Amino acid sequence: MTDLAIDVDAVLADLTALAKVSGGKHAGAKRLAWSDDWQAARAWLLQRLDELPVTIEQDPAGNLWAHLDGAGDDGAFVIVGSHIDAVPSGGWLDGVLGVTAALGVLRALAAADTPPPVSVRLVDWADEEGARFGRSLVGSSAAAGTLDPDDVRDLLDAGGIRLQDAMAACGIDLDAAIGATARLEGAKAYLELHIEQGPVLLDSDRLAGAVSGTVGDERYLIRFSGQSAHAGSTPMRLRRDTLAAAATATLEVREIAIRHEGVGTVGSLRSEPGVITAVAGFTEMMLDLRHLDAEQLASMLAECRAACEAAAARFDCEVELRRVFGATPTPFHPRLVALARAAVHAAGGGDGEPIPSGPLHDATEIGRQVPTVMIFAQSNPPISHTEVEDSPDAALRVAIDAYGRTVGSALDLVAAGELEATR
Amino acid sequence: MTDLAIDVDAVLADLTALAKVSGGKHAGAKRLAWSDDWQAARAWLLQRLDELPVTIEQDPAGNLWAHLDGAGDDGAFVIVGSHIDAVPSGGWLDGVLGVTAALGVLRALAAADTPPPVSVRLVDWADEEGARFGRSLVGSSAAAGTLDPDDVRDLLDAGGIRLQDAMAACGIDLDAAIGATARLEGAKAYLELHIEQGPVLLDSDRLAGAVSGTVGDERYLIRFSGQSAHAGSTPMRLRRDTLAAAATATLEVREIAIRHEGVGTVGSLRSEPGVITAVAGFTEMMLDLRHLDAEQLASMLAECRAACEAAAARFDCEVELRRVFGATPTPFHPRLVALARAAVHAAGGGDGEPIPSGPLHDATEIGRQVPTVMIFAQSNPPISHTEVEDSPDAALRVAIDAYGRTVGSALDLVAAGELEATR
Repeated sequence: MTDLAIDVDAVLADLTALAKVSGGKHAGAKRLAWSDDWQAARAWLLQRLDELPVTIEQDPAGNLWAHLDGAGDDGAFVIVGSHIDAVPSGGWLDGVLGVTAALGVLRALAAADTPPPVSVRLVDWADEEGARFGRSLVGSSAAAGTLDPDDVRDLLDAGGIRLQDAMAACGIDLDAAIGATARLEGAKAYLELHIEQGPVLLDSDRLAGAVSGTVGDERYLIRFSGQSAHAGSTPMRLRRDTLAAAATATLEVREIAIRHEGVGTVGSLRSEPGVITAVAGFTEMMLDLRHLDAEQLASMLAECRAACEAAAARFDCEVELRRVFGATPTPFHPRLVALARAAVHAAGGGDGEPIPSGPLHDATEIGRQVPTVMIFAQSNPPISHTEVEDSPDAALRVAIDAYGRTVGSALDLVAAGELEATR
Repeated sequence: MTDLAIDVDAVLADLTALAKVSGGKHAGAKRLAWSDDWQAARAWLLQRLDELPVTIEQDPAGNLWAHLDGAGDDGAFVIVGSHIDAVPSGGWLDGVLGVTAALGVLRALAAADTPPPVSVRLVDWADEEGARFGRSLVGSSAAAGTLDPDDVRDLLDAGGIRLQDAMAACGIDLDAAIGATARLEGAKAYLELHIEQGPVLLDSDRLAGAVSGTVGDERYLIRFSGQSAHAGSTPMRLRRDTLAAAATATLEVREIAIRHEGVGTVGSLRSEPGVITAVAGFTEMMLDLRHLDAEQLASMLAECRAACEAAAARFDCEVELRRVFGATPTPFHPRLVALARAAVHAAGGGDGEPIPSGPLHDATEIGRQVPTVMIFAQSNPPISHTEVEDSPDAALRVAIDAYGRTVGSALDLVAAGELEATR
């Protein structure tokens, strides 16, 4: 078995050092993609990589790669990594935990007496967050072949700068970015460590957990049309109250999500005229549905559609649904998920059921092409994308240790030819 | 019995003429209170009044009075009227129907061989709508003694002009306005004709109806506080979803209103962060409750409060209620309501149950001091405060005729000393 014990203290020291050069530990990260801040953070990473026997390259999409040779000569490799970019005033762990842990993997392998059985590549994906131009997973989707340059061309940031110009300032040509697909040729597995950014591990008192996949997501704007009317002069039986219809549908969405063991969220009901003295003649509902299983997600959506139509009919309103976003579920590789679960157990994190990830990750894109798994560290408070984001020291230690064990086991599996490809 | 047959054709001709000089019949009224347009409309009214044997005065609150002497010499009088002011781009009937019908009353009395048994005063209340400064019923509340100048001082219109300055431009001193209370000394009854501005008469196929009173009104802003959370990473069981709590309360409000035969309206649910990918950590609900009976209104409010608290508890949220407006019910005088009902019947409008008024009227203020009743003409479409406001010709004819009959009967009742005072 490949001995892969990450030096956890070194990873934690890296996290603290990186926070110091890019915003401070709880002062809000400054690593916005395609910015000078982001390039400064990468410069810090390159300094760390320069100490290791690796080959460093940036691919056409701006993803940063560090290749460490293994014993095999068939071009096969395993990918470790995450993203160094952050939302404005983000946390000190989102993304960079996975990058520094991957750095820990390379260090452990470089320090070993023998090379790993398979080559290992660290990756720092470009613009995972999409916080500047609104499009997430830019670098990983380019590598996965799902980025269409025309879909993102001319996206503007808050200052009116175009995405392609911000990329060009970093030496990246948007139209050439899709050439990054070549970087997955020979990739046998992708393993990513991340904080959970949610409350599931905290609530069940687990320090870390294997991730079963990233959920599929359906987002709709649902518009109820009725009749606005005077709140005083219009008897209840003569109303066509869109807010009553939307409230009914909102509660149905909740029941549907619970029934399917997914999540369903109505984040906003915006009414017109929206005043205290008038029945709402129009209400727009924002709906987000997620599930790890594509069929269950489709059922949830069908039931929510029916619930909206029934609620509209009940209150003599009309309704129309407009899809604004969709993502299919990405279940991770079952063999790797089992390895990660066992590794968390061995690292002292207990033997818990793998949990689905609600948020998207680079692993969502890569997981459709390459056998993939993630490990989550507990988040406490269970939130992210804010400077108060944090994880207990014990959770970080267990998660980093488990990540190293998982990578070690995955290398063995790949070397033995026992990990079947995803596609 | 006092013969009081209004010349309905003349009233309809007045309405058309007034519309012509102040905005056009379906082009949107231009009679905003305290404006030049409003004074121009009043100048038109003064010209009509000048043709009659009346004494004309403006009171300290800007209400316009025209006194026609009756046979009695005890200072008693009956008031007829409504308001000539309008919301911007308002309809051709709201307010002015009652003013022109009152003009019709004076004309009929002036044309009679003998004076009426009691004096009659036409009133055009100032600034009923409150459309410019946000405060309704300015002139009638001054007369009723419920206007506190300090409550309205420094209210600004959209152009930054203060209420007291707009009044001063019309020759009215805000601090002196409360002197208008003297105008109700000797008032024995107040009778007002108005369009319904709602769907009740239309829905029951009635052309006109007696009004049982104006409802009490309780308005609250209700704030639910929970926890905003990621729509993807937060399982349903761990949510503190304020929009789910508010939606539950919204549907309860509806059931409570139906149970009490009142009206209850949630016109808006505003959530924060209010985005498609987050559970709403805060939701503000706008609640309006109305009922003609004060005890029923209090019960509705108590039940709505309990429903909000139960809904908050169910979704692990907090809730606080803030009262933003309250008005007690004004039931009209039972003898006058009975007269108005009989008059509508006699005018060919059928014998229907008196209906409550959801909107407030000048009669709400005056009805607390003086025996009062209103008659409504059917609205079709059943809306108001818009240039498409309208009533069928047949409805206007029945309502105006019924109004004249009611005034005639009321004069007899007052002359006979059979109408007990309200207070």
